[in-house]
This record gives sequence, structure tokens and C-alpha cells, in this order.
Amino acid sequence: MKFHTEYLVFHTPAHREYVHITQKVEAIVNKSGIKEGMVLVSAMHITAGVYVNDDESGLIEDIDQWLEELAPFNQDYRHHGTGETNGDSHLKALLIHHQVIVPITAGKLDFGPWQRIFYAEFDGQRDKRVIVKVMGE
Amino acid sequence: MKFHTEYLVFHTPAHREYVHITQKVEAIVNKSGIKEGMVLVSAMHITAGVYVNDDESGLIEDIDQWLEELAPFNQDYRHHGTGETNGDSHLKALLIHHQVIVPITAGKLDFGPWQRIFYAEFDGQRDKRVIVKVMGE
Amino acid sequence: MKFHTEYLVFHTPAHREYVHITQKVEAIVNKSGIKEGMVLVSAMHITAGVYVNDDESGLIEDIDQWLEELAPFNQDYRHHGTGETNGDSHLKALLIHHQVIVPITAGKLDFGPWQRIFYAEFDGQRDKRVIVKVMGE
Repeated sequence: MKFHTEYLVFHTPAHREYVHITQKVEAIVNKSGIKEGMVLVSAMHITAGVYVNDDESGLIEDIDQWLEELAPFNQDYRHHGTGETNGDSHLKALLIHHQVIVPITAGKLDFGPWQRIFYAEFDGQRDKRVIVKVMGE
Repeated sequence: MKFHTEYLVFHTPAHREYVHITQKVEAIVNKSGIKEGMVLVSAMHITAGVYVNDDESGLIEDIDQWLEELAPFNQDYRHHGTGETNGDSHLKALLIHHQVIVPITAGKLDFGPWQRIFYAEFDGQRDKRVIVKVMGE
Repeated sequence: MKFHTEYLVFHTPAHREYVHITQKVEAIVNKSGIKEGMVLVSAMHITAGVYVNDDESGLIEDIDQWLEELAPFNQDYRHHGTGETNGDSHLKALLIHHQVIVPITAGKLDFGPWQRIFYAEFDGQRDKRVIVKVMGE
């Protein structure tokens, strides 16, 4: 069994941002030489997520608005007693989930026609990392 | 390490539907001959999910109503600028998540007593696929 | 490829509770001797979850309040026709998700600085199990 691990670094200009990373993950899978297996793509922070969905700008705005409705910015989170102001960022990350597993078959991401991988930043404007770990043969 | 990959196809009569697939996944695991490892069950579409919970018809109706409350059908999603009408289907899929990993121990799905695998269709009445990838020894 | 499987048992005093389990998972990974791979941490019940986020008591209260808002206790779930009263526990478990995969690199959980693993109990006061399955080399 082979393992190949890389780390992506993000530093988004905006506080919240959705970054399409399918091509970066594909490049890492190609470099690994692994033909059968899977790749774990997992945020290394507790205010960021990774998800699979459509690369369509309207939908991405819909997702952002929906997350803000279900996990709104708010001054009053208990977490803010620590001096932080990002309680909502934690809740948004929990809702979208922080990781995906993408299957690899015949050396390719085994995706349906519209599946794309996104890094979802909920507390940006500083360095954040995502682990990409390819496992297989 | 062994890999065994199959694809399930669904074409649900209803727009939204919850299909119990534990037995289909078990059959694929048995066919693979893999005794230790895991099986990834992952929707290949961005308007469908896969989850693990109870096979109880009342609960399934509760889940459907709850998803409609948190991610309602709505004419006004920006995504509809593309001509689509399924913005809510994308959000429901993000909420329920599109994949699960089931551990395999001694040749069996290593589940608790009530855990069952469901395919959650949020935009049906056409062919949709789920990848079932068994990995282990 | 090596596999090492253990089961954690929880019996929380409270109906809902969030239990920090990173050290228990680390101990199992150490015992496995696996240096490269991953560990699946997955609730074996349909009214409990596993998530990765911050070990900060204010945030944990925020998460609990937020889950109660989005998936409230309610007498009227159809699931209660079975005699159960825990419809909300199922929905909370679906929202937080029942499992995580933690990458292992150089014998350690390959986490960012604040990532911690939590068992989220939504229907406690009885024995519940979590499977911890380490896979790699």
C-alpha cells in the first residue's frame, strides 16, 4: 500500500470564501502514482470545511446565504468569552463538514459529471491548511 | 490490498425519496471477499446523499419534513438563473452529506444494532448513481 | 496492510453530552503500531455523532444550543408512534454526522493545532459504542 501526503495552504482575501480545489487534488493524485484507492481531503482548522458540490457561482452564493441563515453571525455566542468573535464560523464548519473522501479508480477521481471539491473558508484572511492524503496502490 | 468497485443505479418515481440500501452494500462486500477494511458508499451526484440511520418509516418522514424546513424549496435561489429549479436539492444534499464509510470486520459491516444505509434522493425521476468501493484484505 | 479495531463504550450521566475523546483515539493508534494511514471513528448508534472541533466549553454550549434550535425536542415527531421520544436525537445526529476519518502521518494524528475529536451523545444514560478502526502500515 502506498501513501502520499501533501498540504494545501489558503489565505483568502475575504472572511468567507469558497475555493474550487478539484484540480489541485487531481494533481496530487497524479503525482502519487496511486491508481486504485481514495484521497482524503480534510480541513486542518475548526472554522473551515471541505465539501463536494457544483462549481456554479449562483449556487455558491445560495450556499453562503443559507449557511448564514442556519448558523448566523452573532455577538452573543458563549465562545466569544474567550475573546474570539467567530462562533458562527465553527457552526458553519460543522454544518458543511470538514472533510470528504474521494474514490480513485483507474488513476482518476471517480466522480459523477458535476462533482467538484471546494474548500469553504469561514474565518479567512490568514493562513489555513488542508491535508490531502492519497492511499491505495 | 484489494479493491472492489461497483455502481448502484437509482431512478426513483418520486422527486424526493429515501431508499434502504444496506442489503445491496452487504452483497457487494460479500462478493469482494474482503474481510477487514471498509466500504465507501458515496453519491455521484450533487443533489443526492447517503446517510446511516434507522429504517423506520415515521422517522424517514420526519427527516424529509425537517430537511424541507431547513433547506426549503424556493423559487428564488440564484442557482435558478441557470434554468434549474433544484437549488433546495443541493442544500439538502449538503446537509445530509453525500457519503459514508462503513467499517468491515470479520467479513461483515461492523454496525450497531439499528444502523442502516440509505440513499437520499433529492432530485429524482432520472438515473442517478452511487459508487460502492470496498477496500481492505 | 494492518488493521486494528477497538470499541469505546460510553454511558453518559446526561441525556445530551459532548465527550472529548482525542486521547483515547491516540492511545488506540499508538497501540496499533500503524505509522501511515487513517483512523475511522464512527458512532455505532443512530442517536449519537462524532465530530472534530475545538475543546472550548463555551463553544460546546453554543453547539448544543444551536443543535437544539435546528433540530428541537418536540412531542410530535412521527417516529414517536413507535413509543420512542427521541426523534430530535436522530436529527441532531444526522446534522453533526456520525463519523470522522483522521489521517495518521509519522505515527501521529495529522491534525491542525485546535482539532479535537468529540463523541456527541444525543440520547444518553445508557451504554453506547463507538468503533475506532485504524488502517494503514
